[in-house]
Amino acid sequence: MSILVVGSVAYDTVETPFGRAEKVLGGSASFFSVAAAFFAPVNLVAVVGDDFGAAAMAAFEGRPIDLEGLERTAGKTFHWQGKYSYDLNSRETVCTDLNVFEFFEPRIPDRYRRSEYVFLGNIDPVLQRQVLDQVERPRLVACDTMNFWISGKPEEVRRTLAAVDVLLINDAEARQLSGEWNIVKAARAIRALGPHTLVIKKGEHGVLMFSEEGSFAAPAYPLEEVFDPTGAGDTFAGGFLGYLAGSPKVDEAALRRAVVMGSTLASFCVEAFSLDRLLTLSRPEIDARYRLFKRLTHFEEV
Amino acid sequence: MSILVVGSVAYDTVETPFGRAEKVLGGSASFFSVAAAFFAPVNLVAVVGDDFGAAAMAAFEGRPIDLEGLERTAGKTFHWQGKYSYDLNSRETVCTDLNVFEFFEPRIPDRYRRSEYVFLGNIDPVLQRQVLDQVERPRLVACDTMNFWISGKPEEVRRTLAAVDVLLINDAEARQLSGEWNIVKAARAIRALGPHTLVIKKGEHGVLMFSEEGSFAAPAYPLEEVFDPTGAGDTFAGGFLGYLAGSPKVDEAALRRAVVMGSTLASFCVEAFSLDRLLTLSRPEIDARYRLFKRLTHFEEV
Repeated sequence: MSILVVGSVAYDTVETPFGRAEKVLGGSASFFSVAAAFFAPVNLVAVVGDDFGAAAMAAFEGRPIDLEGLERTAGKTFHWQGKYSYDLNSRETVCTDLNVFEFFEPRIPDRYRRSEYVFLGNIDPVLQRQVLDQVERPRLVACDTMNFWISGKPEEVRRTLAAVDVLLINDAEARQLSGEWNIVKAARAIRALGPHTLVIKKGEHGVLMFSEEGSFAAPAYPLEEVFDPTGAGDTFAGGFLGYLAGSPKVDEAALRRAVVMGSTLASFCVEAFSLDRLLTLSRPEIDARYRLFKRLTHFEEV
Repeated sequence: MSILVVGSVAYDTVETPFGRAEKVLGGSASFFSVAAAFFAPVNLVAVVGDDFGAAAMAAFEGRPIDLEGLERTAGKTFHWQGKYSYDLNSRETVCTDLNVFEFFEPRIPDRYRRSEYVFLGNIDPVLQRQVLDQVERPRLVACDTMNFWISGKPEEVRRTLAAVDVLLINDAEARQLSGEWNIVKAARAIRALGPHTLVIKKGEHGVLMFSEEGSFAAPAYPLEEVFDPTGAGDTFAGGFLGYLAGSPKVDEAALRRAVVMGSTLASFCVEAFSLDRLLTLSRPEIDARYRLFKRLTHFEEV
């Protein structure tokens, strides 16, 4: 079943302790789409400028990613520039040039309106609802947001969450959104706003999922070389929702496998700049690392 | 099989956002012993002052904890006072009165010399080696240390580690000891110093274990009420080593179960001040929470 994703397609300039990448493909919808397309067809809605080149475009080609919704408009593509600390655990945004993304109004092509799965990337919560107004009752709506919207448009965020099934955010955002420090209390408060499932991303510390059937914890894969963390969260979301869209049903067991699949994809994403590692990735490599997660977490009853 | 533990028995004064406890039982060897004694007999070596009262002493009674090695000397018992931040994630040491602990020289009673398992609590690495000199080839030596010794006596720490099988430290200490930020690289460097197994405690983010057979990740149990984190690490160590000492053999499977058992005991420890929750705990409660860890982490193959 197909997935509609709405978010950003961008150029990133990234500096890490290991090197620098200049105006390479980035944006939440880019990472999401390439990760999700390993499992299910993706309908991409985003906007780029007239500087968006064939090299970047090539990332989406030869994959089940429909590009009718990738609007091209006069102006420059969204550009984000960031710099990571020596330990990769904090990053500084050097500049954010919204460019054509500033006036982005998602228009959903007719062919996309029956997408069974919807991922609302991290955009204005008002726009997120406009997307939902344009689609016909999807099976599952997943959503991302960030501190900028939680503090800037709290009421709009809440209104959007009322229509969302699965919210994917990081631990700091969960605490901010709920006003609760304790993560179990934060999860209960957030699930009361609408989402039946909350997926809390904790970076190198893994993922916690709170659903109708309780809580699930998955580690991040302990990697010896983390090259560039940019896009790991969006790649996680792509692997997670892609896996669900390719599954016969969405139940607790599928949600848990989806969390591990998201973590698997994210563990590849950070091995190189931009989408470089995702673009060379094969399904057997994905399945092999999924099995490593199984081995990493296995223990017996007493 | 019996466990020899050498460490501190102390009075703690603890302030958390939820209340204050004045001169209650604390110290690494106290938490360790009560946790370990659920699984195997414990031989306790520590020192207290003549102010150490019957109420504190009662914590060890009625359990398989041998007290011949609990030296009582003229002076006051080690007293630590700490205050936790509103989120319990950082703490400030208000004062540390070493008192009789300042001149502690562990003397191992004859009956203890054949203990099959040894836990060297966080004391001067020179004293840790003096303990090993007094015992007869144990089956397994586990050890704790801290930033104070790693920066103050790095060569002595290394000399001790050469004689240790399992090192249990937190992630900041692992990074400091190895000089490596990446945790996989840090683990390799530390295991090259002697310990075949490294257990890295990450508090609310769980535990990573690196052994001859690879890596193992276990989450912390997501608790709705964390009351006082004091002693959680020592309680983890007690559950971990106690479980191993009560197991027929120490192999990878037993080490993994021991990590989860340590996490189980630690999850109870933080529910109340001091050892209060450990003292009311029963084996069926322990086994029930261990099963919750199993449910918390379970996912299927794809």
